[in-house]
Amino acid sequence: MKPLGDSNIPAASDVNLIATTPEPPYYAVIFTSRRSDGDRGYGAMAERMLKLASGQPGFLGFESVRGNNGLGITISYWKSEAAIAAWKSHSEHIPAQQAGKHVWYVDYQVRVARVERAYGKTS
Amino acid sequence: MKPLGDSNIPAASDVNLIATTPEPPYYAVIFTSRRSDGDRGYGAMAERMLKLASGQPGFLGFESVRGNNGLGITISYWKSEAAIAAWKSHSEHIPAQQAGKHVWYVDYQVRVARVERAYGKTS
Repeated sequence: MKPLGDSNIPAASDVNLIATTPEPPYYAVIFTSRRSDGDRGYGAMAERMLKLASGQPGFLGFESVRGNNGLGITISYWKSEAAIAAWKSHSEHIPAQQAGKHVWYVDYQVRVARVERAYGKTS
Repeated sequence: MKPLGDSNIPAASDVNLIATTPEPPYYAVIFTSRRSDGDRGYGAMAERMLKLASGQPGFLGFESVRGNNGLGITISYWKSEAAIAAWKSHSEHIPAQQAGKHVWYVDYQVRVARVERAYGKTS
């Protein structure tokens, strides 16, 4: 998936595309979470973070789903561990991480993984 | 997440738990898909595959979400690449993979990744 432009950024929940990623190896950040009740600024921040992340060096794409039962999985794909570290320490991303930890999520797990092979069916 | 027993297996869509996985390294199979219209045996097969997979050697847990927009992400966690290969070639799993490719999914991507580090918040 190409980085999104500045205008008309869709909410992650509206995007139902499978990310188009290069030949492995590359990296995946698997973020599994359960939301707390109420929006409390979450929706706007999620859109902003998606827009910001998609413009970072080494960003390859993302896939995001939240089910009716509250469980969400967002996977972002990156060229390198260094690109992931740079995004994690981005000055706008840090307060979002803090709000996620203390306000928006009941629990979550972040897993950083190296994609070694991939295959599939394209429509 | 502990392997599920023989009785009262929930559908993957009803499980909203974050998998409890050991210290990295371990492996993740990231399966992102878009369903075609209609069930056509999918629900029953998905439950059966979840039950079967959870009993395989090296299975560590899974997380699964399908959004209202049709995009689904299922991640299964495994001890080793060998465990993943054994499950992929399981005699009951092969026809399910074929039906997935030709009947149930518009498109999908399978990514096999080595989880190198993990952190999070537990409730």
